[in-house]
This record gives sequence, C-alpha cells and structure tokens, in this order.
Amino acid sequence: MKIKILTMFPSLFESFLQSPVIKRCIDRGYVLLELVDIKDFASGSFRHIDDSPCGGGPGMILKVDVVMKALESVSTEKSHSILLSPKGRTLDQKKVRELANMDELVFICGHYEGIDARVEKHVDELLSIGDYILTGGEVATMVIIDAISRLQKGTIREGATEDESHENGLLEYPQYTKPIDYKGDRVPKILLSGNHGAIDRYRHKQALLITREMRPDMFARYELSEEEKRLIEET
Amino acid sequence: MKIKILTMFPSLFESFLQSPVIKRCIDRGYVLLELVDIKDFASGSFRHIDDSPCGGGPGMILKVDVVMKALESVSTEKSHSILLSPKGRTLDQKKVRELANMDELVFICGHYEGIDARVEKHVDELLSIGDYILTGGEVATMVIIDAISRLQKGTIREGATEDESHENGLLEYPQYTKPIDYKGDRVPKILLSGNHGAIDRYRHKQALLITREMRPDMFARYELSEEEKRLIEET
Repeated sequence: MKIKILTMFPSLFESFLQSPVIKRCIDRGYVLLELVDIKDFASGSFRHIDDSPCGGGPGMILKVDVVMKALESVSTEKSHSILLSPKGRTLDQKKVRELANMDELVFICGHYEGIDARVEKHVDELLSIGDYILTGGEVATMVIIDAISRLQKGTIREGATEDESHENGLLEYPQYTKPIDYKGDRVPKILLSGNHGAIDRYRHKQALLITREMRPDMFARYELSEEEKRLIEET
Repeated sequence: MKIKILTMFPSLFESFLQSPVIKRCIDRGYVLLELVDIKDFASGSFRHIDDSPCGGGPGMILKVDVVMKALESVSTEKSHSILLSPKGRTLDQKKVRELANMDELVFICGHYEGIDARVEKHVDELLSIGDYILTGGEVATMVIIDAISRLQKGTIREGATEDESHENGLLEYPQYTKPIDYKGDRVPKILLSGNHGAIDRYRHKQALLITREMRPDMFARYELSEEEKRLIEET
C-alpha cells in the first residue's frame, strides 16, 4: 500500500520510520511511504502557510489554499484522504483493519492551533485517535500507521495477532515467561502442565474475567456462548 | 517535571524530541526527559530480555525480572509509573491534566508481543490510548507526552487552549483564515463583522451544533444552560 503524509514537520517522522515493524514493511515493499512538506505549497511573496483566525482569537490557522494544493498534488483516483481532527470518528481496531486493506492513504496532519474548516469538505474522512488534545496530527498519524503496519501480511508472525486484545472483542489473557518464580510470585501452575486443552480453557476464562473487570463496556458488547457462560462461573 | 521512558528502542524517540512543543519544554527546563534502555538490564550469559510464553503460543514475552530491574533503577518516592497496556484505563483529557501536574512520570513501553503479567502488580497505573493494537508502547507514550507537554506553563500562548476540543466538554467551533473566498467557498460573514459579542455567540452555537452532530455521546454528557438551550434552537 501507498501512504502519503502531508505535514509541516516531515523530520518528525525520521526515527518513527526506523521502528522495527514499520522498517520491515518498507524494506519488504509492503508499504511505500512518502512525506510531503506542506510548507512547499505556500505561495505569494511571504510564503505564509498560516494566518490569524477570522473573527479574532489566539493562535494561527493553517490556510485552506495551501493545504488543498498539497493534497491535490498527491491525490489519485485510488487515494483515501484522512484529516486528523478531534471532530473525527474515534479510531478502533475495526477501522484499523479497514484502512489496512486500502491501496493508498493520504494523511493530513493539522496544525496544533487549527486548520481552516473548509478543508474538511475535501477529504474522505476525519479521524481522531482519542478524546485528548495533541499539538498536531503527527503523533496521531504515527499511531494509525503503526496499527496498520502490523496487519500487513508477513510483518508479524502468523497467528500472533489472533488472541490480541480487541481482535476478538476481548482483552488478551495474561502472558508469563521465565523466571517461573519471581521473588515468590509464581507463574500459574496450569501453564506449566503441558495440558494444552486445559491451558486454552484457562486462558480463555482469564480473557473473559479480565475484560469483565477492566472493560465492562467491552464485556457488555461481547456475546457470551453457553460454554463461555459456564466457564466464567466455574470456580 | 521529570519524565523517564523505559523502552527497548530509545532511538525511536529521537525525532519526536525535536518536535516544536516538546523541544520548547525541554529547552526551557519545564521537562527533564530521560530515555532508559531496557536491554541494559538483561543479565545472565545470554542477556535475554524476552522468552517464549509459559503454556505455549506464538511470540516472545518481555521478562518480569528485566523490566523490574529497569523500573527500580529509575523509581523515586515521587515517581508515578505507567505501563502502556490495552488493559489500561483509556486516556482522556482529564487524565492528561492529572498527569501534567505530576512531578515525575515513568513510562514502561511494552513489547508488541506481550509483557509478563506480573509487572502489572508493581506499577501505579495501566493506561491505554484507545481501542486499537499497536506494535509497542512507544508511539502511545509519545501521544501522552505530546498531550502533557502542551499543558506545561509557557508552552502554548495563554488562552490558546481554553476553547480547544475536549477542554470544556465540547468540540471546538470551526476556524477560518484568509483567503476569505476559496474557489467560491466563503468564510461565514459574521466572522468578518467585527461584532465580538455576535462572533462569540456564533462560535459557541457552532461548537454546540458540531458536538451534537459529530459526537452525540459527548453532547449527552454536556449540561446545557438555559441560554445554550435557546441558542441551539435559534435559526
């Protein structure tokens, strides 16, 4: 897939692109990534990319004409453009899977003080990564690309994603590794039994119990099978 | 405030630390940031930091003894330790403000395939940035630090944060800047009127309408005053 990022700070992405999973995606050709500097699209003798808000107020607003020139320069028939915005739909794993299957994504990273509202009419989608305020869309774009990349075929060991939190509507069961005894805190015995049926049942029960405790909202949306109902009530 | 980040990939943070707001925080001494490489705390002749999961399954699990050694090396009486985990409470702006007021934060960035569950008992808090799966805690940590940094005194112009989305329970009103006419799409006339009372009312009404349309869940939690009820029904 192709990913194009429109930003005023392309250098912010440098070390992110060296992270293990992203680098593997790029090196193997699964992802073609292009950074586009919005500043290159400023025109006029002052080459301003932002200006003060109409109607007054603090801060500087990223100009619609500059952003649109940048967006038009990279758009193709296949491209799906995303404006990072607090107004957008909140990202979840379902949306991540949807984006991971697209051919070409364009991310527009806004200014931390605002972007001209007219840009919204020209993008395919507004997305937010959560209910908190960031200085700009850059780290939010990294989050989305990170989440997408790990779903690219060949990036993560086959089967490694199936039991992960959010993939099946439950949080993941607790994982343990050596040492078996850490200052008196021991790995649950059943995990050392070699009885794979019992281990699977134990893990699934833990996933159900942890989701019920930590995320009652997720648990309420999960449809329990008859067997799961029995499992969760066993002592 | 002091921020310490435990990670297996300290170099991932290099360009992030150069982002405008973070750099200003660090340069002005508002934030003292320390990167701690978890790999330095591996012991034994093989210096493994991870191992296969007890009970079988794909992936490698970050070892409790190694993570705890790293955590103990940076913990002080004042420090508040945060493990990034899909199990954690979901970050929101209220939590961001709470963290921004702390003296010392320690972030533990997990492995994308898992971290020994026993670590959870030794941290002050589990946090998640949203319902999606990341390759590791690194980008999530960047998101939290980005959100915290912009609340440090002197980082962003005074008054610039008050009307931002999520700060007052509403999404932000739309912002516009020049050109007034972008290919026939004009800035709303009222914003050019110079009538500040009318502009404030217009903006507040837009914030209410946009929140109702885009985020009915946020709107339902917002308590409308009598005046706001009138404002929203005006045509």
